Amino acid sequence: MTTSAPIRLRVFSLNCWGIRYLSKNCIERFVLIGDLLNQEQLDIALLQEVWCEKDFLFLKKKLGSVYPYSHYFKSGFIGSGLAVFSRHRIHDAFLYRYSLNGYPYMAQHGDWFGGKAVGKVLLNISGLTVHVFVTHLHAEYCREKDSYLPHRVVQAWELQQFIRHTSAGADVVILGGDLNMHPDDLGTRLLRNYTGLLDSFSEAAKFDGCEEGFTHISENPFTHTDGLVPFGGGVRIDYILFKGSGEVDVSCESLSTTKGPVPGQPFPYSDHEALTAEFLFTPTKKGNGCSEREFGCVSDKLPELINTVNEARTEVKVGLHCSERMRHTAARTGIMGLVLLVLELAIAAVPLFALGAEQPFPKASFYLLGALCFAVLLSTLMLYIFYSIEVKALQGTEDQMRLALSSLHERIKESPKVLSSDHLQNPLDSKDSVHL
Amino acid sequence: MTTSAPIRLRVFSLNCWGIRYLSKNCIERFVLIGDLLNQEQLDIALLQEVWCEKDFLFLKKKLGSVYPYSHYFKSGFIGSGLAVFSRHRIHDAFLYRYSLNGYPYMAQHGDWFGGKAVGKVLLNISGLTVHVFVTHLHAEYCREKDSYLPHRVVQAWELQQFIRHTSAGADVVILGGDLNMHPDDLGTRLLRNYTGLLDSFSEAAKFDGCEEGFTHISENPFTHTDGLVPFGGGVRIDYILFKGSGEVDVSCESLSTTKGPVPGQPFPYSDHEALTAEFLFTPTKKGNGCSEREFGCVSDKLPELINTVNEARTEVKVGLHCSERMRHTAARTGIMGLVLLVLELAIAAVPLFALGAEQPFPKASFYLLGALCFAVLLSTLMLYIFYSIEVKALQGTEDQMRLALSSLHERIKESPKVLSSDHLQNPLDSKDSVHL
Repeated sequence: MTTSAPIRLRVFSLNCWGIRYLSKNCIERFVLIGDLLNQEQLDIALLQEVWCEKDFLFLKKKLGSVYPYSHYFKSGFIGSGLAVFSRHRIHDAFLYRYSLNGYPYMAQHGDWFGGKAVGKVLLNISGLTVHVFVTHLHAEYCREKDSYLPHRVVQAWELQQFIRHTSAGADVVILGGDLNMHPDDLGTRLLRNYTGLLDSFSEAAKFDGCEEGFTHISENPFTHTDGLVPFGGGVRIDYILFKGSGEVDVSCESLSTTKGPVPGQPFPYSDHEALTAEFLFTPTKKGNGCSEREFGCVSDKLPELINTVNEARTEVKVGLHCSERMRHTAARTGIMGLVLLVLELAIAAVPLFALGAEQPFPKASFYLLGALCFAVLLSTLMLYIFYSIEVKALQGTEDQMRLALSSLHERIKESPKVLSSDHLQNPLDSKDSVHL
Repeated sequence: MTTSAPIRLRVFSLNCWGIRYLSKNCIERFVLIGDLLNQEQLDIALLQEVWCEKDFLFLKKKLGSVYPYSHYFKSGFIGSGLAVFSRHRIHDAFLYRYSLNGYPYMAQHGDWFGGKAVGKVLLNISGLTVHVFVTHLHAEYCREKDSYLPHRVVQAWELQQFIRHTSAGADVVILGGDLNMHPDDLGTRLLRNYTGLLDSFSEAAKFDGCEEGFTHISENPFTHTDGLVPFGGGVRIDYILFKGSGEVDVSCESLSTTKGPVPGQPFPYSDHEALTAEFLFTPTKKGNGCSEREFGCVSDKLPELINTVNEARTEVKVGLHCSERMRHTAARTGIMGLVLLVLELAIAAVPLFALGAEQPFPKASFYLLGALCFAVLLSTLMLYIFYSIEVKALQGTEDQMRLALSSLHERIKESPKVLSSDHLQNPLDSKDSVHL
């Protein structure tokens, strides 16, 4: 099915910061993004934070002649913000919603309302099956005290699971998006080590862009620079990752980022920099008509992977502990509300039984206190349900991680050459290593 | 990698009806189910409605010597209820939560709290990669006026997507579970036609069980028989589906169901009958080391598939229309609550400006009305958010269905022999065929 000539593919990724009425110069920037995409004549553009469907439809119209195929992934209250524009026919689309994604009561952070997810589109380029993934993980608001870390680790876990499980039939896998994680962060390592995806920044033969590949820089006028100072003025949190298969060798010819302001304009495309990667697909000589079936990492990377999964499991356990504590607090507060309500009703009921006794409550206070108790009861009930769902999701992830570790240990036993690795943790040791 | 000798595999599926304190004889029945599984010495047991983790742990302990491997899928508030017991090592587990699953305020139906999902476990049996799926879809409470039909259709759509996308590398695919759909229902057809999964009831060389393969029968003492009368005393809503690959031919040697009461006991295992299927895997002569890569249906079934997807899309549109109407009602009620609150505050504020004017409100009524308005506002806000999420999920599914239809039409163009099919609907026609 595959052609024998090498194929070039240019992939674009940008977090568009498209919050209507809140993001600065939102409409103008979408015009500029559209111009850029039309001018660049890419193969695939992966956009994040296209929160408003109107903006997607605007781009769809503007880009129609160059990118006849597109897909907008809908999820959550606002949407997933994920959009794909492609010059190649999109044969299929599939969305996986992350099981954890912040808290609805943290409305100022808004992630919960966005319904973060990973979207997959299936392309057929010159006979090659190309699986393209686009995602946007939960934002990091405070690196020192990152209360969303367990959620992001669960998202990274689910992302790697989704990619591994759905791309067994792929000749080429490409993932673009805003991972909200630095290159050496736990989640990034988990994703790269488990899926075997390569980072186009490290692999590119040629790079042109911001220092160290930063995609979120302090020079950007839309950026809060304070958070970026400890990192030398920028962080790399947007990625284009890729891998080939037994059928196709994939190499990254070049990677470039935008560098702040758009030429001739007072502002940049977004608060993130855009990435453009150019890939070369070279069909292998083997050409046996089937890609590698063993998805996942190669055996000499197993010890590293096992350690990463152990580390992730610890983080999930920490999250689980917090979540259980929050659920407990919600339950306790709810019970207090209930006791107070019962007490109030009991006191109010006294005059009914003891005739002649005066109503001890002024009516206004009675109703106010009753309403308060009821509000406490209702809100703690909802919080209890919410935290229980969180606990279940974290427990589920931890179970899956334990299963994965036991399976990875089994695999390592079968390939004794890597057994020498001393720094390998046993899953049972790690089980006891977190005392919370 | 594969062996050349045929392999036998026995698969079991049962909806256990394990609602502690609500289901009758729950604990006793789990003892009986455990006894049955130990006695039958199956390869894989797929259980649904194991709602309480304690019951899973009880079974895990009881079955440990025969089924050393197990996995319990956690999701939602209560759990997904899905459990797998296996004699073969489980190498990996992955869970997909359905995006729609009833309503939280329909607490008497409880589906929303269960976090319905499809679980996947990966087995390696004598060198063959066997992907085993277990699921439980939203219940049908009233067939004539089934308000959950769009949710179940979305679930069936996501189920077929999940199976198609994650099983490209499988030699054998097996799905067991309670689909809550009759054999010819839209969702069942969608699932079977799109994935190419075969029904073990139709395919089995030998069948021993309830009439017509019923798994929910009126003779069952736990069943509400009224609903089953129009269907001749039973329905078939539990299934074991399967398919092979280019690597392995799979045939169903036999299928059996339990037939009501457990011998020597006054009650049956559950309110559903259990299914046991025996498969024979015969490695094909081809043995080229790779399974078929083209997942999904074969081209001569395309017209039927296109019609099924069109039908499903219509159902999703009907659901979308209802959901948008509910959201609209929530918004309108919320605005009325807000107006009433503002009005009340305005009237109460009159004495502040017009000195000497008397407070028009008795204090108690004032607080009561205020609390009522506030409660209306809050609950309609939550309903608005909930319905918006539902609308987004339905819109997203409809978009995916449209994309799939256009891709299927493209495929049909490439295989002109099936073009003669007159009963084929064009996706654009179907777009206009629903005027809501």
